[in-house]
Amino acid sequence: MNNLKLHILGCYSATPRAFTNPTAQALEIKNHIFLIDCGEGTQVQLRRQKIKFARIKHIFISHLHGDHFFGLPGLLSTFRLLGRDTPLHVYGPKGIKEAVTLMLKVGSAWTNYPLIFHELETNTSELIFEDDKVEVFTIPLKHRVYTNGFLFKEKLGDRKLDINAVLNYNIDKCFYQNIKKGKDVTLDDGSVVANDKLTLDPQKPKSYAFCSDTSYKEDIVPIIKEVTMLYHESTFLEQHEKLALETGHSTAKQAGIIAKKAAVGGLILGHYSTRYNDLNEFKEEAKQVFDKVALAEDGKEFLF
Amino acid sequence: MNNLKLHILGCYSATPRAFTNPTAQALEIKNHIFLIDCGEGTQVQLRRQKIKFARIKHIFISHLHGDHFFGLPGLLSTFRLLGRDTPLHVYGPKGIKEAVTLMLKVGSAWTNYPLIFHELETNTSELIFEDDKVEVFTIPLKHRVYTNGFLFKEKLGDRKLDINAVLNYNIDKCFYQNIKKGKDVTLDDGSVVANDKLTLDPQKPKSYAFCSDTSYKEDIVPIIKEVTMLYHESTFLEQHEKLALETGHSTAKQAGIIAKKAAVGGLILGHYSTRYNDLNEFKEEAKQVFDKVALAEDGKEFLF
Repeated sequence: MNNLKLHILGCYSATPRAFTNPTAQALEIKNHIFLIDCGEGTQVQLRRQKIKFARIKHIFISHLHGDHFFGLPGLLSTFRLLGRDTPLHVYGPKGIKEAVTLMLKVGSAWTNYPLIFHELETNTSELIFEDDKVEVFTIPLKHRVYTNGFLFKEKLGDRKLDINAVLNYNIDKCFYQNIKKGKDVTLDDGSVVANDKLTLDPQKPKSYAFCSDTSYKEDIVPIIKEVTMLYHESTFLEQHEKLALETGHSTAKQAGIIAKKAAVGGLILGHYSTRYNDLNEFKEEAKQVFDKVALAEDGKEFLF
Repeated sequence: MNNLKLHILGCYSATPRAFTNPTAQALEIKNHIFLIDCGEGTQVQLRRQKIKFARIKHIFISHLHGDHFFGLPGLLSTFRLLGRDTPLHVYGPKGIKEAVTLMLKVGSAWTNYPLIFHELETNTSELIFEDDKVEVFTIPLKHRVYTNGFLFKEKLGDRKLDINAVLNYNIDKCFYQNIKKGKDVTLDDGSVVANDKLTLDPQKPKSYAFCSDTSYKEDIVPIIKEVTMLYHESTFLEQHEKLALETGHSTAKQAGIIAKKAAVGGLILGHYSTRYNDLNEFKEEAKQVFDKVALAEDGKEFLF
C-alpha cells in the first residue's frame, strides 16, 4: 500500500509571529519529495523535520509573494554549500528566475549544480512535470498576482498479478511482466487466458491538490475533482468574507464548498491570518459544508 | 548611566541547523535601534526578542552573502504589511538595492513607506550616518566579496553640571544650559567663574565595533582602537587556520589578537562554523591572547 505523505513546513499567512512559519510543504509521492512553496525559514523547517535536502529535486512556487518564496535564495545557497551536484528544477511564475538568481549573483554565490527554472505564465491548467509514475499539473488560481496551485497525481500503475490464478494456470514466470502490463497469455495448448482472469485492478492512483493563495474560484472544481486530498487556503473566517474578497483570499467556509463540489477525499485548511487565536473555528466553519476537514499546523504530517 | 545594549539575533555561519540562526544583531544606542545584518529568519528573531519593528529605522548590511542579508526582503515586506510609514534607511554594498527591490517588485509588493538605500563601495573607513548623538563609520574588511564592518560611536556629550558648585556660586538656572556646553559664567560682581569649576567631565562615549566576515586584518586596529566592545567573527579554531585563510574568515585566536592590539574593552566571538560542537573551545582559544572574551549566542543580550 503506497501512501502519499505531506509535511506541513509552514501554514501561516504573511505577517510572521515568533513561532509560526509562512507557507511551505513537502510532498512525498512515489520516489519524489516535491517542495511546494518556500517561505522564509523553509530550510530550517526542512532540517527540523529531517527531510533530506538531496532528495528535493523539484520545487513548485505558487506565486511571488514573500511568504511563499523568500526562503528560496537561502535554500538554493545551502544546497551549494552542501556540495550538491544533482540538478534542481524550480517551477514558478515568470520573473522568479531573474529575482532569485540576482540574489545569488550579488554575493558571487552562483550554484555549482544545474539550476533549471521553468517559468509559468498560462492561465489554463497545464502539465508541467511527468515521469513514469507521477504527473504534475498547474491549477490556475485567482489572487492579487499571477498564482498557480498544483495538482500532483500518481499515474495508474500496472495491474496486480492474481498469484493464485497464475499458479492455477501454471504460467511461466517469464510472462508475469507482460501480464501486469495487461496482456493475455496463450497457453501451450493454444488456448488464450484473458488478462482479467490473471490480474486484479491496480491501486487507485492517489492525488493531492495544493490551492493557495486564492479567492473562491469554482473554475478549479473540474481540475481537482475527486482528488484524494485537497489543501485549500482559508485565510479568513466567514465574518471577514468581504476582506477575503478584497485581498484575494478565501474563507474556511468557501474552502469547504470547493471541497464538497469537487467531492475530494479530504480537506486540509491553512494560510490562517494571524488575527485569529483559535484555529478550531476554521475547522468548525468548513465542517458546516464538508465533513472531512483537518487543520494544517507547522510540523504536522498527513498520510493519505 | 547610559549603556549600549546588543541583542544577538543570530550568530552562526552559513549552513543552517535546526535551531540556530545566521548573522543578525540589534544595537540599542542612545534612542536608536540599529539592525546589523539580516540573515534569513531575522524578523522572527526580532519578534522573539520583542524588539519593536517600528523602532528600526536604519539597517546596516556588511556584505551580500545570503547568511547576512537574505532576511531583508521578508523584513521589508513585513514592515509594509504592518502599515509602516516612517522612512527606512538601508546601508550595504553596491548591488543590494537592485536585488532586494526586484524581490519585492516581482510580487507587486512595493513598500508604502520611503525606503532609502545607501550603497557602499569605498575601501576606506567612512562616516555613513550621523546625528547629534551618534556616528556610524564603515570598517573595511577582507572577505571573498566586498565587505564592511561597522563602528557605532556615541558622540561626546555635554559636560555635567556640578550642582554643589553651581549652588555655591548662586548661579541662576538660566545659565545651566550654557554651562553644560562648556561656557564660563560672569557673576553680577563682574568676576568670571571658569567652566571647569562648575562642571564635571561628561561620561566617556561608548562604542561598538562589528566585524564580520573577515580574514585576519590588522589594518582595522586603528579604526576600532579602544572601542567599548568588539564583535569579531571567529568562524574557525586555530587548527583550521588554513581553511580560514582560504575562505576569508578568522580563527578565535586571530580575533583575540585583534582585540588585544586594539585594546578594546571586551570581545564577543561569533559566526561559528557548524563543524564544532563545543563553543567553549572558541572562548578558551581567544583567551590565550585576550582576557575579556564572551561568546555570542542566539537570543543573548550584552550590556556595556
